[in-house]
Amino acid sequence: MRQPEYLRTVQSFVRSELIGQEALLDSLAPAPLPLYDRFAETGLANWWLPKEVGGLGLSLAESVRIVAELAYGDAGVAFTLFIPVLTSSMVNWYAEPELAERYLGRMSAENGYCATLGSEHEAGSELVRISTTVRADGDALILNGMKAFSTDTDFAQFLVVIAKSDGPAGFQAVLVPRDAPGVAIDHRWDVNGLRASATYQVSLTDVRVPAANALRGNGLRLLEVGLNASRILIAATALGIARRIRDTCMDYAKDKMVKGAPLATNAVFAAKLGQFEMQIEVMANQCLAAAREYDAIASQPDAAAEFLKLGTLRSALSTKMFCGQTGWQIASTASEMFGGLGYTSDAVIGKLLRDMRYVSIIEGGDDVLRDLMFTRYVVPVSKRG
Amino acid sequence: MRQPEYLRTVQSFVRSELIGQEALLDSLAPAPLPLYDRFAETGLANWWLPKEVGGLGLSLAESVRIVAELAYGDAGVAFTLFIPVLTSSMVNWYAEPELAERYLGRMSAENGYCATLGSEHEAGSELVRISTTVRADGDALILNGMKAFSTDTDFAQFLVVIAKSDGPAGFQAVLVPRDAPGVAIDHRWDVNGLRASATYQVSLTDVRVPAANALRGNGLRLLEVGLNASRILIAATALGIARRIRDTCMDYAKDKMVKGAPLATNAVFAAKLGQFEMQIEVMANQCLAAAREYDAIASQPDAAAEFLKLGTLRSALSTKMFCGQTGWQIASTASEMFGGLGYTSDAVIGKLLRDMRYVSIIEGGDDVLRDLMFTRYVVPVSKRG
Amino acid sequence: MRQPEYLRTVQSFVRSELIGQEALLDSLAPAPLPLYDRFAETGLANWWLPKEVGGLGLSLAESVRIVAELAYGDAGVAFTLFIPVLTSSMVNWYAEPELAERYLGRMSAENGYCATLGSEHEAGSELVRISTTVRADGDALILNGMKAFSTDTDFAQFLVVIAKSDGPAGFQAVLVPRDAPGVAIDHRWDVNGLRASATYQVSLTDVRVPAANALRGNGLRLLEVGLNASRILIAATALGIARRIRDTCMDYAKDKMVKGAPLATNAVFAAKLGQFEMQIEVMANQCLAAAREYDAIASQPDAAAEFLKLGTLRSALSTKMFCGQTGWQIASTASEMFGGLGYTSDAVIGKLLRDMRYVSIIEGGDDVLRDLMFTRYVVPVSKRG
Amino acid sequence: MRQPEYLRTVQSFVRSELIGQEALLDSLAPAPLPLYDRFAETGLANWWLPKEVGGLGLSLAESVRIVAELAYGDAGVAFTLFIPVLTSSMVNWYAEPELAERYLGRMSAENGYCATLGSEHEAGSELVRISTTVRADGDALILNGMKAFSTDTDFAQFLVVIAKSDGPAGFQAVLVPRDAPGVAIDHRWDVNGLRASATYQVSLTDVRVPAANALRGNGLRLLEVGLNASRILIAATALGIARRIRDTCMDYAKDKMVKGAPLATNAVFAAKLGQFEMQIEVMANQCLAAAREYDAIASQPDAAAEFLKLGTLRSALSTKMFCGQTGWQIASTASEMFGGLGYTSDAVIGKLLRDMRYVSIIEGGDDVLRDLMFTRYVVPVSKRG
Repeated sequence: MRQPEYLRTVQSFVRSELIGQEALLDSLAPAPLPLYDRFAETGLANWWLPKEVGGLGLSLAESVRIVAELAYGDAGVAFTLFIPVLTSSMVNWYAEPELAERYLGRMSAENGYCATLGSEHEAGSELVRISTTVRADGDALILNGMKAFSTDTDFAQFLVVIAKSDGPAGFQAVLVPRDAPGVAIDHRWDVNGLRASATYQVSLTDVRVPAANALRGNGLRLLEVGLNASRILIAATALGIARRIRDTCMDYAKDKMVKGAPLATNAVFAAKLGQFEMQIEVMANQCLAAAREYDAIASQPDAAAEFLKLGTLRSALSTKMFCGQTGWQIASTASEMFGGLGYTSDAVIGKLLRDMRYVSIIEGGDDVLRDLMFTRYVVPVSKRG
Repeated sequence: MRQPEYLRTVQSFVRSELIGQEALLDSLAPAPLPLYDRFAETGLANWWLPKEVGGLGLSLAESVRIVAELAYGDAGVAFTLFIPVLTSSMVNWYAEPELAERYLGRMSAENGYCATLGSEHEAGSELVRISTTVRADGDALILNGMKAFSTDTDFAQFLVVIAKSDGPAGFQAVLVPRDAPGVAIDHRWDVNGLRASATYQVSLTDVRVPAANALRGNGLRLLEVGLNASRILIAATALGIARRIRDTCMDYAKDKMVKGAPLATNAVFAAKLGQFEMQIEVMANQCLAAAREYDAIASQPDAAAEFLKLGTLRSALSTKMFCGQTGWQIASTASEMFGGLGYTSDAVIGKLLRDMRYVSIIEGGDDVLRDLMFTRYVVPVSKRG
Repeated sequence: MRQPEYLRTVQSFVRSELIGQEALLDSLAPAPLPLYDRFAETGLANWWLPKEVGGLGLSLAESVRIVAELAYGDAGVAFTLFIPVLTSSMVNWYAEPELAERYLGRMSAENGYCATLGSEHEAGSELVRISTTVRADGDALILNGMKAFSTDTDFAQFLVVIAKSDGPAGFQAVLVPRDAPGVAIDHRWDVNGLRASATYQVSLTDVRVPAANALRGNGLRLLEVGLNASRILIAATALGIARRIRDTCMDYAKDKMVKGAPLATNAVFAAKLGQFEMQIEVMANQCLAAAREYDAIASQPDAAAEFLKLGTLRSALSTKMFCGQTGWQIASTASEMFGGLGYTSDAVIGKLLRDMRYVSIIEGGDDVLRDLMFTRYVVPVSKRG
Repeated sequence: MRQPEYLRTVQSFVRSELIGQEALLDSLAPAPLPLYDRFAETGLANWWLPKEVGGLGLSLAESVRIVAELAYGDAGVAFTLFIPVLTSSMVNWYAEPELAERYLGRMSAENGYCATLGSEHEAGSELVRISTTVRADGDALILNGMKAFSTDTDFAQFLVVIAKSDGPAGFQAVLVPRDAPGVAIDHRWDVNGLRASATYQVSLTDVRVPAANALRGNGLRLLEVGLNASRILIAATALGIARRIRDTCMDYAKDKMVKGAPLATNAVFAAKLGQFEMQIEVMANQCLAAAREYDAIASQPDAAAEFLKLGTLRSALSTKMFCGQTGWQIASTASEMFGGLGYTSDAVIGKLLRDMRYVSIIEGGDDVLRDLMFTRYVVPVSKRG
């Protein structure tokens, strides 16, 4: 089956810019790396942005394929490139049309970034406990607070901040230009993996934006909607890493001799790789099934309202949980396959293991997601799968 | 989303004939049980048979849904009802048209059964080592041998026997009427689970059939093709059992008090059920993805040839392996949830655990399938998923 | 290393009475089976009873070896024979000396049984919620209630009943002769495994015993003490079943041909058996370490008081949890090794799998034990291991 | 129970030199770190060396306790300090007495190090394929080859090299002074964890030593003997890391609020920690049981011959496999517990996870050990556990 053009472009980018560059990609080099410009040169930057704002309008199912390919090369690069979808999808559906067009249009035209400021140190995964505030001041909104983990923020064009409001909505999601006075990067985190990406702690001190910058609807619910896409794409990075691990194992096993024969002919090795292949297929099918369900909603005329009604989709929860767990099994098993060399920086498996770890941590650990799954989809009998 | 009519019919059958009948269904009662006639009365017997022979022509994706519903009630009943698809699909694609029409037409008209005689004691999963023979004798074929495990055989209308041939094909698949002289049921197996089904050891002694009863193509390859459908549907029974387990847990947890509150409000219980729900969704998506891939091939004009070229589909291997493994995790976890009562025949979980076990055993254990997966789909780089 | 005499006696009993009798042992035949008399004839019945009452005074470490050997033959037989230790150890330490001597002396002399009546349907593992009552009536105690699961009860000489008291202790443990009026067997449970043992639901209706039959101390705490020994021995049955599974696999693999060679030379099979052997060694060491810790306490002059102070021992919790989990892994893996035959009653693996299941269920499921472990041994920093 | 003096010394060292120094310890700083001198100042350096050569003569059981305490602080430090036992035990048992006294005496007096040069790139775990050679040249031995992974080598006083011999023994183990001409450090490995230790690739070019420097017996068998002690102590580092992880989780959970209460009161968290505590106890008991078995052999008058007869001990295989697997489960589970912060260098869990990984890789991966276990201890019926 012939690959679509955009996928071949991504594969070519991966081969020329990522494969073999693991040391650089793992070095926490200053962000953004020059290679991000070269991705923009392919014309695929922000591939999911709607055609209405000048984007390519690729679907989430297509995004799954793109992200899995990118993550085959480097999950940190993939994450840097797709995580703006979390922010842009909230803006696309819930910002005033003029505001959405202005910011998404510029983002599309200039291959820019945007970022969401949600999680806080105290609140952790319980966003209901966030302490960042937004208050009305005449025709403006004033934001104050500190946000713990936000990716791409430093070089983003605009941000969406989730804040506690004194208004009736309780929480608001507010679009803030990156260069608004009072927005300060506290520091970039030294992360265990995904080190080609850049995640920041950010402070907001009397940040003032027009009242029209507030998105419509409860901020926490909007965040739930935005996380549907990003969780599915985080899962897709697990798929890409898993494929890279499989191929790395096979490359190693071709030449490595065990008991007088290549490791690739060893029955125990074959059993592990056969299991990996099964798991990879199931991961791929789950990512695509979830993405198609999302795309089906997104293509409805009232998509914004429908997503608001549904909030966190079961498929998004399932996909991130499943791919995080399965990816970790694959990475754990593979990390024992390369002997002593596999425990050194000469082998790529150590990096792949660290990269894989983020899938089960970011945007809700499994404990949080299992609890959410139970409450939303097991307790209500009619919603069970 | 409204269920299609056929699914509501199945659900109604499950509620009225299966739920609550666990003691009977688990008793290894004489086969076939009267309830199979009542299933035929719904008009859904052999639902997958092509319209050309008078069948309903439901797809494999639709079959997945039907089988999962049936297995929610009882996996042995589900298995009894769908396993003829293994035989009928070989006949449909590889028998002479007249032969196929005659046998499948009667099967459709009379709600009959058919069975495949493949596995033997010595050969186990290595069918290349089977010792049942077929030889030409004028315009007839003579079959001799012993087949270890064959389901529905005693009450089937016709059989397909996989036998070693002295001809160039090496192995042949031969249609044999059930009542052909020389076909003898040695005994019915006392199985650990799935006890509403009936599996037999069968002897063939100088069984004579017309030469035209031989299906076209290598018998082992034909069997590979037939197993694609049945393996996916075996996986679908794991899905049905898993859903039944989940609901059984939830029913129990509503009333069971732990630390002064219903178990259903216990966080550890919720975490397990949240995990089950995730796993159930992934099982369902994998079954459907595999079935759709099968249906896409089956709808091609040259489906028979295409299937012969592809042989064992990766998706069929993945689906059976994944659902067997995941189903067993769910059943294992759940079997600890019901306290001492869960270890008695008063609880259904013991039966569900035994029923689930077959998924990873029948039609190729995971060791065999992992090896096949590795050889067919990992070693050839271009076929990797 | 030469085995001690008592172990060789047990091994001989296992070979002559249990191996090969699986169908009978699995049949839920009337209890007690005649073979229990033959065990008594070896002179080893109730081997742990103190020499002071005429017993052999074997230690818990020695009991671990005996029970593992018995369970190699049949776990239900092992359970029937050792479970009286739960009752007798409470009586030994906490009954008035005269009472203890009378009942334990007769038990020793007549190779009798005794049983504990603890768990109730509503209360489950939370014994603080039991509703069986004991109240003083002059110089007598009157007991009323219903006990859900009690093993050996019907043919026991005496029982210890855990009951809610109106006195200051809150709960009492009361010795009740089996033939006391008002003790009624409601029914014997049809259990999933361990079917050579007999577990009953028992009713107590105005059962009257002398006040001196109350054991000293809080009944729930006494039960904790008694469970230390039985939990360690339940774990030892998992060890015995695991060894039986290993040997069953090896016997099968000697003759079974796969790819032209005996399964025993297959690398994937070898990897599984190598893992089993490791797990079996760790199970054995853990059982022995826990038993030795118990024996060290039991050999102190103030053992009764010391046990009362310690209550549930960490080692007893760990041993049952670990052996239950590990035994289940072994049984699960092995249950896929025997092909289709392994799913029939012609193979013993189905029985071994069902037998193994009880270890993680009886005397506290893992959820209960993990919670207890956390509260008792993780929260208090000084008690962490 | 009061700790022995040496353990309190180690604990004090850990608190003052290791806890809180994670950034330094994880930095691959020049080896050896100054803190190793401070450990020597405690008087405990090379604690296992026999009293005959001026050592403390602590047993392997005592070593398990010391190593677990050290690894609680840092596994790389623990490994650096105990890994000389592999070399020194071969020298102690199999070198000419004069040679052993000279080298072990100096090592003891000067708190020195020694190292074994065994593994090679091509050979991997199959030492029978090593290509380093030793040949006689008059009264000298000449060694040539390249050794892939050897720890402590650069600052060791002497080495033991495993080499292919043209003599009848096939392989020899030869003591080589570190400063012998021709011994060259190729490079230090950049390892994924254990970064306070230093592992080197080493070349031997026409290295000449007296013939008397050859140890008695087949070199591969001597290595098997030496690995018994080091494998058990590697397992003990997993125990130490696991305890550190548990305590790190508990510290975090005291303050972290979830749903309005400290995480430490959360039932799902409690279940995980209860499971950890069980696993930690079993790891400790297994390490101690294996060490005691080793100590029992070591205390026999003919210990050297007995070890040579036994070769690789089952208990050493079991202990490393079990603790590596269990430690990895604990580290994997814990690495998801700290939210986003747990994925940054501000949390210690990332380092603990990387440190834990080595246990299942170094001195034989589990695939190798399972195979060895099967061949040596499952196939011979009389040796099964």
